[in-house]
Amino acid sequence: MPRREDSTPELDIREVKRGRHPGDKYVRVRHNPKLQRMGPGLLTATPRAEEPSGGISKAIYRCKKALLGTPLATYQAQHERLTKVKALAVLSSDALSSVAYAPEEMLRALLLAGTAALYFSLPISGAIVLLLVIVAFSYSQTIKAYPKGGGSYIVASDNLGTVAGLTAGAALIIGYILTVAVSIAAGMAALVAAIPALEAFTVPLGVGFIALITLANLRGIREAGSIFAVPTYAFLLCMFGLIGYGLYRVATGTVVPVSEGSGALAGDAVSGLSLFLVLRAFASGCAAMTGVEAISDGVPAFQAPEWRNARTTLAWMAGILGSTFLGLTYLIHRYGVVPDVEGHQTVVSALARAVLGQGVGYYAILASTVMILILAANTSFSDFPRLGYFMARDRFLPHQFEYRGDRLAYSNGIVALGVISSVLLIAFGGDTHALIPLYAVGVFLAFTMSQAAMVVRWWRRRDPGWRWSMAINGVGAATTALVTLIVAVVRFREGAWIVVLVLPVLVLLFLGIKRHYTGTSRELLTETPIDPERITHTMIVPIADLNRVALQSLAYARSLTPNVTAVHITQGDEAAEDFRNRWLAKYGNLDGLVVIESPYRSLVSPLLAYIDAVDSTDPGDTIAVVLPEFVARHWWEHLLHNQTALRIKGALLFRPGTVVINVPYHLSGKREPSPGPERGG
Amino acid sequence: MPRREDSTPELDIREVKRGRHPGDKYVRVRHNPKLQRMGPGLLTATPRAEEPSGGISKAIYRCKKALLGTPLATYQAQHERLTKVKALAVLSSDALSSVAYAPEEMLRALLLAGTAALYFSLPISGAIVLLLVIVAFSYSQTIKAYPKGGGSYIVASDNLGTVAGLTAGAALIIGYILTVAVSIAAGMAALVAAIPALEAFTVPLGVGFIALITLANLRGIREAGSIFAVPTYAFLLCMFGLIGYGLYRVATGTVVPVSEGSGALAGDAVSGLSLFLVLRAFASGCAAMTGVEAISDGVPAFQAPEWRNARTTLAWMAGILGSTFLGLTYLIHRYGVVPDVEGHQTVVSALARAVLGQGVGYYAILASTVMILILAANTSFSDFPRLGYFMARDRFLPHQFEYRGDRLAYSNGIVALGVISSVLLIAFGGDTHALIPLYAVGVFLAFTMSQAAMVVRWWRRRDPGWRWSMAINGVGAATTALVTLIVAVVRFREGAWIVVLVLPVLVLLFLGIKRHYTGTSRELLTETPIDPERITHTMIVPIADLNRVALQSLAYARSLTPNVTAVHITQGDEAAEDFRNRWLAKYGNLDGLVVIESPYRSLVSPLLAYIDAVDSTDPGDTIAVVLPEFVARHWWEHLLHNQTALRIKGALLFRPGTVVINVPYHLSGKREPSPGPERGG
Repeated sequence: MPRREDSTPELDIREVKRGRHPGDKYVRVRHNPKLQRMGPGLLTATPRAEEPSGGISKAIYRCKKALLGTPLATYQAQHERLTKVKALAVLSSDALSSVAYAPEEMLRALLLAGTAALYFSLPISGAIVLLLVIVAFSYSQTIKAYPKGGGSYIVASDNLGTVAGLTAGAALIIGYILTVAVSIAAGMAALVAAIPALEAFTVPLGVGFIALITLANLRGIREAGSIFAVPTYAFLLCMFGLIGYGLYRVATGTVVPVSEGSGALAGDAVSGLSLFLVLRAFASGCAAMTGVEAISDGVPAFQAPEWRNARTTLAWMAGILGSTFLGLTYLIHRYGVVPDVEGHQTVVSALARAVLGQGVGYYAILASTVMILILAANTSFSDFPRLGYFMARDRFLPHQFEYRGDRLAYSNGIVALGVISSVLLIAFGGDTHALIPLYAVGVFLAFTMSQAAMVVRWWRRRDPGWRWSMAINGVGAATTALVTLIVAVVRFREGAWIVVLVLPVLVLLFLGIKRHYTGTSRELLTETPIDPERITHTMIVPIADLNRVALQSLAYARSLTPNVTAVHITQGDEAAEDFRNRWLAKYGNLDGLVVIESPYRSLVSPLLAYIDAVDSTDPGDTIAVVLPEFVARHWWEHLLHNQTALRIKGALLFRPGTVVINVPYHLSGKREPSPGPERGG
Repeated sequence: MPRREDSTPELDIREVKRGRHPGDKYVRVRHNPKLQRMGPGLLTATPRAEEPSGGISKAIYRCKKALLGTPLATYQAQHERLTKVKALAVLSSDALSSVAYAPEEMLRALLLAGTAALYFSLPISGAIVLLLVIVAFSYSQTIKAYPKGGGSYIVASDNLGTVAGLTAGAALIIGYILTVAVSIAAGMAALVAAIPALEAFTVPLGVGFIALITLANLRGIREAGSIFAVPTYAFLLCMFGLIGYGLYRVATGTVVPVSEGSGALAGDAVSGLSLFLVLRAFASGCAAMTGVEAISDGVPAFQAPEWRNARTTLAWMAGILGSTFLGLTYLIHRYGVVPDVEGHQTVVSALARAVLGQGVGYYAILASTVMILILAANTSFSDFPRLGYFMARDRFLPHQFEYRGDRLAYSNGIVALGVISSVLLIAFGGDTHALIPLYAVGVFLAFTMSQAAMVVRWWRRRDPGWRWSMAINGVGAATTALVTLIVAVVRFREGAWIVVLVLPVLVLLFLGIKRHYTGTSRELLTETPIDPERITHTMIVPIADLNRVALQSLAYARSLTPNVTAVHITQGDEAAEDFRNRWLAKYGNLDGLVVIESPYRSLVSPLLAYIDAVDSTDPGDTIAVVLPEFVARHWWEHLLHNQTALRIKGALLFRPGTVVINVPYHLSGKREPSPGPERGG
């Protein structure tokens, strides 16, 4: 929609076309519904310009519009500000949802040393919650320092330099992709726990959900706060209900420990438990920490005073996450729930059944779990494209990631995330347990880079109170660095090696992309316009036959420069003589015709040899090859014509400095001659 | 290599380039190893012109040369004339090899009515040999009437009109494809009978052999006669040896009937035998007749007097085929060999073992059978591309089939046959028995069309002795028509329906292709050259940035016409203002610049809308869009650039009458300015 109005009703586009429209004259567009004049030499495309006129492209456009909605203009971008209550819903679903799989992963690691070892889940949970408190405190510092949003990539680039920033960026990218894969896998696991019949369809269902989320994000989720609030708070309600009722039953002594499989192992001594296993259980449980950084990334989305509201929300989130995680772990222990390694039961499902029985409450828990996990996957679809935008703006990613789609979303980033996470989900068979080992490395590496960057920042700036802040971030950085190391080592063989391998490759890729862009723009930099008078022309027109297509191309070339040679390539000397005679009959002389006999029946090679010969004779000229291009009405008709023009074009693409002029001929069925290139069709 | 020499040592290509080289001046090419001057405006490409200079294309060229041999010039085409002995080998392998599978197919059909019904193989064989004699006599007439080669397509087109000719052509095409598939499948069956361990690899081996034959034919088989003579005569020797020794054992009463599976069924009455089964056995046995037409197609390859030698060879061939077929059928009956429906034994293999024991003779029989079957497949590789050439010349097939490859073979036909027959072999699991029902319909339909055409021909021309010739061809046509009908009906459900369905589709396709070509060439026909003076130009240069690529394209356009408009598409009004200021700084005014704001961030649609606006303002002008084209050094670098130029080109392809001028910019790494399009790289 136009923002400026202009009083002159119509303008003459001829002025522009002549190449010499004086600055005080206006470019007039008469009755054109697609373009609107804004000023001299300045037009604006209207929404009508977006609608293609062709049959197929119109159909595609309509499908796209139906799926994604009407295109939005750039100025229609909106920035919703979030209340604390809404912000908690929007920014915490990733973190909070991790209680659906983190306790289970921790227990599975311990189970390797027998069911008795499951007791150790309590102290390990304590350690994880302590870690959570440290990280939350640490991020509180970042929130104040970066009120415009302090993602690890930006903070690390700012304070630690390019390579550290890119390392954080790579870690985040891996983390976002895994958030989608793990959340969807865990969501499907919860779904299967409720409806076991769906087990065979885990992967297709998961991919289907990713496709839905991708589509929703391409449409652009406008009412973000409200959409998110419902399932997040429903999940919180369910969890608090479950934990509260579970504790009530503990207090009233009505707990009936579940037997499922645990009975046989209950008497085992804690014999096989090693430090390695404890560390692995800790590393697995750390999956609960993923998503904690979301609030510090999203500070600008809060209502004023942003940093203070964000800090409060972070504290709420840490409190809720910590207490839910501890509460669930305690109850799982108290109710004797053992992970069902073989079957399709999650521990949360088993616990809910033990506490509530298989009634409405049980299904509410599972349904809210599925929903919040899908929501958690969704958060990556706003975080990843935004990071992609930042990195593309800094030229570390292809600039396609900067492009905003019809609905103002960063479409390429959204589609890339959807595709990569689907591939990952398929490759790992939709198994949460198989994906988890890859998950924590990236997340904790990003934590570490971010906190370490804050330490450097405090040291350099020495704002009031910098010592205290630096101490907090220092503790945070040291702790998360240690955890990163632990996670990478104890889960190396289970899959963390993939991340350890991919991380440096990604960083090198980013640097390579940056180098290419920098080199290119330096090379293309130019101070002075080129003088057209200095360009001299030679045009070569390959013609297969003396038909209308060829004659039209020849006339076109000759209308641009007198230096035109028609080149006809033929197989034998009889055919050559015949062609020359036909030319003679048409033009009265053989001027400007070169016939090349090609005893080996090739077309492209002799033409290239001739162009080389012409070029070496007069290297100052700019050579243009004028290609008659035959456009059939139907795609299959192209099969009936040698794609010679295409092959010549392909060969010329790699011949520096050769201009290619395509003169199209559209098959129409009519026979009326026309002076310029044929317009029929 | 040039055939004509010229005394002028060097020529000036400038004369041609200027577009006005007088007729009495020569086009001079100085020290150019790739082109040789033959006369005024006449060059010949040397073998050096074929060698590409680029890295990858050079490697591809060398690979191709190693696989297919050095390219041959058109005048190097040779036409070997065959003696009768060689001709029998070259032209009969297809027909003779069919004894390897035809008796078996006949017996399998009878076996459905019990082993006792196998006795009926003797009278049915008699009927088939009678049919053979009739067809051979009938073709003798064709040989004399068409000494330049009377394939069914040509004979039927000549005398019965287009649709009949195309029906024959379609039948032949189906026949050739099935000859390859059936012969290779039968060859693999013989191979497996000798070496049962290969059974699991039937299909890959068969496809491998087809690939080898394709390659050999693309190379061009020069010493055809000699190559063919060895296996054909080896096969004949083996067959006559087998039959001779078998009959000797019959005469001396030392036959020991084989028991394999036949014992259990030996006492069965011929209860289930119906006319339908007998006809089906007859139809199956008719597979023996395939390839009989080869000699009448190949008359010109004989030494003079061609028609007489061809007739003699046809008589030999029919005699050998008939006696081998009868002999084998008799011995198979006499030795009590029963088709091994489940296992991997062919009846020829079983018979050879029964007669000769499993010694050297047995393996010689199987080896020569495999060889002649592969040879039989090979004959289709010379027949199919030749038919493709004839039909493409008549414009019923895409003219790509007219093209002769580096080695003068009709490469596209050869490759098409290789691909289609491989697909067929894979689809039918390499099973001869499954392919046979499709085979005979096409073959006998082609026979019928050809003989019926001869009848019409005799009737019209009334040459001396026409009554007798017409009677012979009449009997031939009637008989083969009846057989075609029988084959199509009794084997309809087993697969013949596919052929019955495909035949009319092919004929319609041929007619459609012809209509397209005729319509196109009529539309392109033109009497008078177009006057270049009547063409007026408007050029539009879309530019993304004021960098060297854009400035170069602008200068190029301006050197061709003053009517040049630079179009810059931008997202917002700030960016638009910024761009106009930068333009102003560079050019001193805003002449010839149009900035279009695109609120929906699309590039192509506003550009197209602008082109439409320009076009409607001045419909007489020819619009050219000058596209700066960025050529990266490596393919992956293209991923880092928006393929905007490509998208614009794609959109313009469907806009009739719009010329596209690609001004390439090759990324080089150097920074030196150049007047014309950049030549670095």
